[in-house]
Amino acid sequence: MAEAASFDEIRELFAILPGPDDAARDMAAAREKTLTKPVGALGRLESLASWCAAWQGRHPPQIDHPRVAVFAANHGIAARGVSAYPSTVTAQMVANFQAGGAAINQLCRLHDADLRVYEMALDVPTEDFTQTAAMGEADCARAMSYGMMAVEDEIDVLCLGEMGIANTTSAAALCHGLFGGQAADWTGPGTGVAGDALAVKTAVVRDAVALHQAALGDPLEVLRRLGGQELAAIAGAILAARIGRIPVILDGYACTAAAAVLYAIDEHALDHCIAGHCSTEPGHRRLLDTIGKRPLVELDMRLGEGSGAAVALGVLRAAVACHAGMATFERAQVDGPV
Amino acid sequence: MAEAASFDEIRELFAILPGPDDAARDMAAAREKTLTKPVGALGRLESLASWCAAWQGRHPPQIDHPRVAVFAANHGIAARGVSAYPSTVTAQMVANFQAGGAAINQLCRLHDADLRVYEMALDVPTEDFTQTAAMGEADCARAMSYGMMAVEDEIDVLCLGEMGIANTTSAAALCHGLFGGQAADWTGPGTGVAGDALAVKTAVVRDAVALHQAALGDPLEVLRRLGGQELAAIAGAILAARIGRIPVILDGYACTAAAAVLYAIDEHALDHCIAGHCSTEPGHRRLLDTIGKRPLVELDMRLGEGSGAAVALGVLRAAVACHAGMATFERAQVDGPV
Repeated sequence: MAEAASFDEIRELFAILPGPDDAARDMAAAREKTLTKPVGALGRLESLASWCAAWQGRHPPQIDHPRVAVFAANHGIAARGVSAYPSTVTAQMVANFQAGGAAINQLCRLHDADLRVYEMALDVPTEDFTQTAAMGEADCARAMSYGMMAVEDEIDVLCLGEMGIANTTSAAALCHGLFGGQAADWTGPGTGVAGDALAVKTAVVRDAVALHQAALGDPLEVLRRLGGQELAAIAGAILAARIGRIPVILDGYACTAAAAVLYAIDEHALDHCIAGHCSTEPGHRRLLDTIGKRPLVELDMRLGEGSGAAVALGVLRAAVACHAGMATFERAQVDGPV
Repeated sequence: MAEAASFDEIRELFAILPGPDDAARDMAAAREKTLTKPVGALGRLESLASWCAAWQGRHPPQIDHPRVAVFAANHGIAARGVSAYPSTVTAQMVANFQAGGAAINQLCRLHDADLRVYEMALDVPTEDFTQTAAMGEADCARAMSYGMMAVEDEIDVLCLGEMGIANTTSAAALCHGLFGGQAADWTGPGTGVAGDALAVKTAVVRDAVALHQAALGDPLEVLRRLGGQELAAIAGAILAARIGRIPVILDGYACTAAAAVLYAIDEHALDHCIAGHCSTEPGHRRLLDTIGKRPLVELDMRLGEGSGAAVALGVLRAAVACHAGMATFERAQVDGPV
């Protein structure tokens, strides 16, 4: 995918987003009825298999080359004391990913997923978005293009995650900017702020959205002004996956907030994405309700780095394995209902 | 484990059930705090790892040899038209398991789990429990002992499942007999009965419990009178797993109803068990609430054969992999909170 240098080039992509492959989906539905189980007895595993076929554009769906892409970046807003951790942790966690020591490494190993970590100029954080826009348009478009690189032909499902100290503040600002409500509706503890620190974080979100009020009608402007490089990259990766016919599993609040920018432009832009999980960050459930996604698992996780998406990958693999591998009533000579 | 020929021998086992290994649990809690993530950020994955350590009696917990045990049996009550499928399907599905064509085969392959299918005299169904007890005491005790055989030293987690046309009727009768309420509270569509057929099923459950009213104070009598061979085997397997320090993942309604017999005897008898999922069978949620178990996943499944437990096994493996494999803050040189 060519590098986009402006929002106009990004906007052009929305005109070429493919829809689901109805033929593949119909084949999945037809096969489902013949498999050795009561109709519907695998519940969401059945709809997942159908969804995967529709967005891979083939039947049967297959997951042989899953990828987890984690984008890492730093945020100017971190200087405002909105996180329990210092910004140094972003680079340290990237090193931890590279050394194999993080949760996402263990989950990728378990599920035979290819983990790619994309480090985005960690020594050049975005601007403090309570003072000015987080990024210029060219920088934001470039970050989106960078995210598109995570999508390559050989992969068949893409889990998206992020690492960036202070990015739940950015996520809250994005959601508040895109969907309104009160700043407190979208602001939560993140890595663990509470009390006065949470009040500061909420005020930061409120002030930021107030500052950029005039631009809130344009979702890409919201992303540029209130987002972060890793969030822009996730939005880009989701677009590229759609064009490349690769189903996507979203992770937690920050990842889903990035995805929501696309939803705000076109409410069908996330049809090829599932919500891997619902985290305990309170804004995440509100956001999933807003964009109409039911999470696959709810395990009280709130780590980010793609961890919830990677757990959900196990469920998606289960769905695809059952759909592709089960015998039919006819082949197994099992009687149907009386 | 010696074969039990009477309920007295079964009852003796309750006196020797080991508790959790507190030392292993404490080691898990101590390690958890040092891992490279905010405290609590892996949510239920953290408590699962701790639970697994406590019931395996070792730290770190490990899952290298998971087993899925599926017990299959036939039910006299099937003749009353309580299922959408004929009893011939039980044996046909056992053959399907053996040929590798069922959902549980695909899930075991995905999770490298050892699948064992235990066929229990399929040509000798239990008696119709609206007329008499489903089993004699010796038969029920023998079925429990048979279930104990599924537990062998080398396995480190046990998923339990069942196959038996009409066994959600037996499960409903067990729950109604053990926990009271109305027959309709515990009776649901199973493989797919509705309307008049569901009314018949509910009446069967009500009549059965009324017939055996005088014996409802003794959970093993409830199992003998209203249960089935595969359900007795599951109860036996759970006891043997406890004694053998093997954590257990329960499957759906029928499996959990079998487990509930043990809970009714001793409310700590299932402390080494987790509820793998919550099925759409309405009695299952009521039952999980009654025995105080929060399901790991909720995917609208209602297939049985261990399928929900096997999906949950993926989540448990994720929990153990993160706990055992993640780097500590110290080793990874990651800063803690400011």
